Amino acid sequence: MKNKPLILVVNDDGVSANGIRILTQVMRDIGNVYVVAPDINRSGSSHGMTLNSEISIQNINKEKNEFICSGTPVDCVKLALNKILPKKPDLCVSGINHGSNHSVNGLYSGTLHAAMEGTIQGVSSISFSHLSYDEQLDLTPFNSIIKIICEHILQNSLPEGITLNVNFPDVIYSKIKGLKLCIQSKGSWKEYFKLTKVIDDKHNYLITGEFQSDQHNIETDSWALNNNFISLVPVSLDFTAAFQCEQLKYLEDVF
Amino acid sequence: MKNKPLILVVNDDGVSANGIRILTQVMRDIGNVYVVAPDINRSGSSHGMTLNSEISIQNINKEKNEFICSGTPVDCVKLALNKILPKKPDLCVSGINHGSNHSVNGLYSGTLHAAMEGTIQGVSSISFSHLSYDEQLDLTPFNSIIKIICEHILQNSLPEGITLNVNFPDVIYSKIKGLKLCIQSKGSWKEYFKLTKVIDDKHNYLITGEFQSDQHNIETDSWALNNNFISLVPVSLDFTAAFQCEQLKYLEDVF
Repeated sequence: MKNKPLILVVNDDGVSANGIRILTQVMRDIGNVYVVAPDINRSGSSHGMTLNSEISIQNINKEKNEFICSGTPVDCVKLALNKILPKKPDLCVSGINHGSNHSVNGLYSGTLHAAMEGTIQGVSSISFSHLSYDEQLDLTPFNSIIKIICEHILQNSLPEGITLNVNFPDVIYSKIKGLKLCIQSKGSWKEYFKLTKVIDDKHNYLITGEFQSDQHNIETDSWALNNNFISLVPVSLDFTAAFQCEQLKYLEDVF
Repeated sequence: MKNKPLILVVNDDGVSANGIRILTQVMRDIGNVYVVAPDINRSGSSHGMTLNSEISIQNINKEKNEFICSGTPVDCVKLALNKILPKKPDLCVSGINHGSNHSVNGLYSGTLHAAMEGTIQGVSSISFSHLSYDEQLDLTPFNSIIKIICEHILQNSLPEGITLNVNFPDVIYSKIKGLKLCIQSKGSWKEYFKLTKVIDDKHNYLITGEFQSDQHNIETDSWALNNNFISLVPVSLDFTAAFQCEQLKYLEDVF
């Protein structure tokens, strides 16, 4: 056991989700694993963290190093690295998310952002998502490719400040054509706001929606997924739109 | 009133924060204003949104078009644009946040991400933050520069997919040297985890911390703020680390 890599497994769907059970199982084949996951479904948490209130952690399986956390996915990573794991892990994996985190969806995703928090803390971190929202879908066919990707990243590390965002297309595994390194496509949600209750001036809504993205650009994750490739997008912690700097330079003169 | 621009004001500190009162006051000088803000402090919400549960909105001042929302800052923007405002606004401003949103802090910030949601929806959007966490600080000296920046963006718009992240240094206004267009600096939080309660296997923690960033690179927001400039960072919705694509290309061959 001594030379096995130390691996942190997190997610945003919560500790009992099918996706994290599969990912944990694969990671146990290659390393010493700690699971630190939200106690409930925390989808849509993005990079949210808990400020000014307490977060609890609880060891729910001592033999298997499994912990639940009352906070966000990002809180899970912070507490895992600082209070739970015996040392800095060699790898942080997040997922497998039930639902897409490609295109602009990554912005809302607790799964991707848990991995990004791992990156902030200097750990090579990968986010895995499957385009299907069906939580009962058999994800085991993906075991071998997940294992291969993780073994390569363990060997080569990711560049500093880069998280790898992996999305699996919603097709049977035999139809998958390969892995494709992509850029993030443009996209947005066409949202519906269902009015559920009106009490005096108070209106309650439930947000649902339909995702729309540009699938024409062959370099994008949307094209790759739509054409049965597994998409890999290297995601940066630096949000600066460098090319736009010159264009907005005139603002320096308005003071 | 007819030709005045329509402006949405949001924040993450909640509707009663000093910062949003100041920002609203300035915006009323230049446009027709709607305020849609969280009913409580939602700092650290990042791009989080509410999935699978109801969000309420309530008009708390009909004359002044002020609404409170039970959801996240991003929920506020989604509901404002789809259910509250009479048409698509000409500008969305978020803040003034009490505390820094420069460097990697933007990743956690509900203020910046509310503005980014405006950008997703095709509205020129600006996030304003002041480095001081003192909620009682007199922010009115910044009124005129906020007004000037907004008037310029109303006239020229921001490039598609770009949010402007503005941070004010924590010095008296007379010491400010100007506006500086910057790149996001590298940074991280040195965090402290205060154990507040232990019940059986359950450990409760409170996270606090100290921000550390690279202030040596003259192109960064950290340098600018440390040298009494107001930092302007154009932030992209596209997280792709384009330069790293080639470096990770080998992963395409592992399938």
